Amino acid sequence: MSESTNNNNASPPANNNASDKSNEAGKRKQQTKYKGGNTIDVEPIAGTRDFLPNEMREREWLFSKFHETSKLFGFEPYDAPILEMEDLYKRKGGEEIVQQMYNFKEKSDLNVALRPEMTPSLARLILKNRKILTLPLKWYSIPQCWRYETTTRGRKREHYQWNCDIWGVPEVTAECELFSAIIHLFKLVGLTSEKVTLRFSSRKIIEDLLKVEFGLQLSEDKFKETCIIVDKMDKMEAEDVKKILIEKVPEISEEVALKLIKLMNFKKLNPNKDYSGSKALIAFKEMLTNEEFKNGPVFKEIEEIFTLIGKNGYDIEDWIEFDPSIVRGLSYYTGVVFEAFATIEGLSRAICGGGRYDKILGTYGSKEQIPACGFGFGDCVILEILRELNLIPSYITSQKVDDFVIPFDTSFRPTAAKIVTYLRQKGRTADIYMKNPKKVGASFEYADKIGATRAIFVAPSEWNDGEKVRVKMLREKEDSSTKEVTIKYTEL
Amino acid sequence: MSESTNNNNASPPANNNASDKSNEAGKRKQQTKYKGGNTIDVEPIAGTRDFLPNEMREREWLFSKFHETSKLFGFEPYDAPILEMEDLYKRKGGEEIVQQMYNFKEKSDLNVALRPEMTPSLARLILKNRKILTLPLKWYSIPQCWRYETTTRGRKREHYQWNCDIWGVPEVTAECELFSAIIHLFKLVGLTSEKVTLRFSSRKIIEDLLKVEFGLQLSEDKFKETCIIVDKMDKMEAEDVKKILIEKVPEISEEVALKLIKLMNFKKLNPNKDYSGSKALIAFKEMLTNEEFKNGPVFKEIEEIFTLIGKNGYDIEDWIEFDPSIVRGLSYYTGVVFEAFATIEGLSRAICGGGRYDKILGTYGSKEQIPACGFGFGDCVILEILRELNLIPSYITSQKVDDFVIPFDTSFRPTAAKIVTYLRQKGRTADIYMKNPKKVGASFEYADKIGATRAIFVAPSEWNDGEKVRVKMLREKEDSSTKEVTIKYTEL
Repeated sequence: MSESTNNNNASPPANNNASDKSNEAGKRKQQTKYKGGNTIDVEPIAGTRDFLPNEMREREWLFSKFHETSKLFGFEPYDAPILEMEDLYKRKGGEEIVQQMYNFKEKSDLNVALRPEMTPSLARLILKNRKILTLPLKWYSIPQCWRYETTTRGRKREHYQWNCDIWGVPEVTAECELFSAIIHLFKLVGLTSEKVTLRFSSRKIIEDLLKVEFGLQLSEDKFKETCIIVDKMDKMEAEDVKKILIEKVPEISEEVALKLIKLMNFKKLNPNKDYSGSKALIAFKEMLTNEEFKNGPVFKEIEEIFTLIGKNGYDIEDWIEFDPSIVRGLSYYTGVVFEAFATIEGLSRAICGGGRYDKILGTYGSKEQIPACGFGFGDCVILEILRELNLIPSYITSQKVDDFVIPFDTSFRPTAAKIVTYLRQKGRTADIYMKNPKKVGASFEYADKIGATRAIFVAPSEWNDGEKVRVKMLREKEDSSTKEVTIKYTEL
Repeated sequence: MSESTNNNNASPPANNNASDKSNEAGKRKQQTKYKGGNTIDVEPIAGTRDFLPNEMREREWLFSKFHETSKLFGFEPYDAPILEMEDLYKRKGGEEIVQQMYNFKEKSDLNVALRPEMTPSLARLILKNRKILTLPLKWYSIPQCWRYETTTRGRKREHYQWNCDIWGVPEVTAECELFSAIIHLFKLVGLTSEKVTLRFSSRKIIEDLLKVEFGLQLSEDKFKETCIIVDKMDKMEAEDVKKILIEKVPEISEEVALKLIKLMNFKKLNPNKDYSGSKALIAFKEMLTNEEFKNGPVFKEIEEIFTLIGKNGYDIEDWIEFDPSIVRGLSYYTGVVFEAFATIEGLSRAICGGGRYDKILGTYGSKEQIPACGFGFGDCVILEILRELNLIPSYITSQKVDDFVIPFDTSFRPTAAKIVTYLRQKGRTADIYMKNPKKVGASFEYADKIGATRAIFVAPSEWNDGEKVRVKMLREKEDSSTKEVTIKYTEL
């Protein structure tokens, strides 16, 4: 697995594309040059992105898939401010997301942060509006999320993240809806189960492993810390994971640490075995000794998921694997956790991730707990994958305008304005040549730039002959008989 | 005119609705309570907004009108980071927008700001990408803009603002395209010319008034300062405007100040006269003494606008008035300036505003200047007006889902999942009951909440009889014969 495998769902992912290099250069310049000089730095702040129209159309295309999928699945849109009180994100456990928070003191001394993730705002919204909301809730959003790193080499500081969450459903029927929505999105953008795998497990597995198999009694904080260390397993040598585990969680002995790592990583230790469908689940259970654990509710839940996603259910099991090494890097998860990975050579990156967080309201001081689960799905990795696989339709990035109206001279400008207005009222996208009409070459260059289908010339000879205009079809072959026609403007 | 008349296009507008009061309360709480206590404050940061699904759908509805209009007119989408270097916004001249900047020092000591307006980012983007861009450009965006006020009573700190800009066109053909786009939007949301007026003038009028009529030679900075003072005229007594003018711009004598105020305000001094169409222009010119000024290029431009927007052109002159008191509160305007106002009793507020800013690139150190004009159109005032006039269709704020699938019991959950997947693949928005299926009452409550058209029951008796399901049409009358049918699921 790649370095980015353990990106949690809220962190802007690593960025390997060319435009980031210019951001890096920009940052160096900003730090030396921004002293009130006369010329501005044209680069955006390091780690942030501008979107030119072609890039913006690509983003809009992806977002339209997020919106379409969300609405198809019955998720309702919501939003919250990009700026929140810092306290909303402060949690114990050494999460990367909290360490890298983009926080600052504003003028009235409040400690605020540009949101690193959406879930805390969602929890705040639900807590605030609890009395007027009916459960279950299915809500979605596409917030921009921020992080601050002092070492920003090749890493973004912001990304957009599609979030879908289900509140009020304690059963894994909710997780399966989320899985299905993610896979619907994958299909919608042209991905297949050969290119992407959704891996899942449950925090309850590692919890019960520690408790039942190894007989440890960890506090909630120590358990969360253990999960966050195990989540980083992919990035580190097993020996280092062991050391950190023993150091940070003294209840864990060297022997237990080694056993834990071996169990979590068993799929990677047997890379050639077939672990598709529920095979990994069976193999994993065979490694366990405690019968009560093996036949207990935790595995019942996992099996229920396999039933729901099977051929006679959601029919998405080709996309999904059980993998106990998935624990996720956020401390609030309490049950099922999952990540979708690209399995393409050179692009084995985490695309999205999520899980169940049944106790989040409690951490915010609420007496009522509401079961909840959700995922975050960033815009950067998926676009990189789709670009690599040539799955972004080329037509979406360029402008397309139906009609382009060109006045013969300045005296025909009002008439051209009348015609462009007529076309727009008919629902046709239309533009008008606003510069000096005498420059015919420039107007054709403009027609080409805006991707016009028809050029409509408004000139005295045709106009004075019953309000006619000359229409040139710009996308038809030169020898086509319909290439150029003269018609009354109301027939356009 | 109301107090908010002089909001410039980038300032989040005053907010008079109820939810803001809770924000105020929230702010007070935040300042006292956020000391690391156990319960979080559920309010968003003072002056910011949460969007629950019904509010979010309303926002999406308005934004869809912005997108639709922009695309119909051939504007291309773009975006830039919400965080920019503070230097991008620092300008001389005492603008409110600079005084109220939401700026702070980030961890590496850079002075940054949450953008107060979009135009500087747009200028930065164009400067950065100058070589790959072909003029003219028509670009649009719907950025969130921020401001910081210490006295936030009843005022928002953020709003969304539709921006349309045209770069590379020196003539007023560009301004007329902008006017037409704004009025298209007004029509699209159901407004009429009785409810809204677009007032325009040109900075060149006040410039030539001072220079030609009054014989003053002001520096560029002093001229900008004069404009910003005159822009605040509506909020102050004439006597105070005079005092400030004389104090801040010593070149202006008391006599000139009084003449200037009288000329700028002449429409208000004659409230019962008909100043529609170009009548105000004629009346204004009659008050001037210098023939060269009266017949010069400044008024030629204004007259050209009236020709272009007339019955034989854009046909929007019913919506538009010449008004020399419009000067706008941003220092970078150089030519035509405009504001659209609601003219409804009790709601006479500025809805949007903009103007020409031909010299902005120069202020950023560029040797090349590109003529440009644009407008900003906030989301708050227009929604307030549309709510007041009952112009927001009620159906847009509630959820509508085509189908809702309910399993008979837990054993039918996979089958229900299969059916909901089948429906979604057909493009129908569909939801599934995820909680305990035994609670029929709760499932009906949920069907009602999501606005389902059909409830589809998956139960053994029908399913075992050729994979049939029972369909209940939830929006038909109780006595309708098609109220309930039993069909094969593939016929759904």
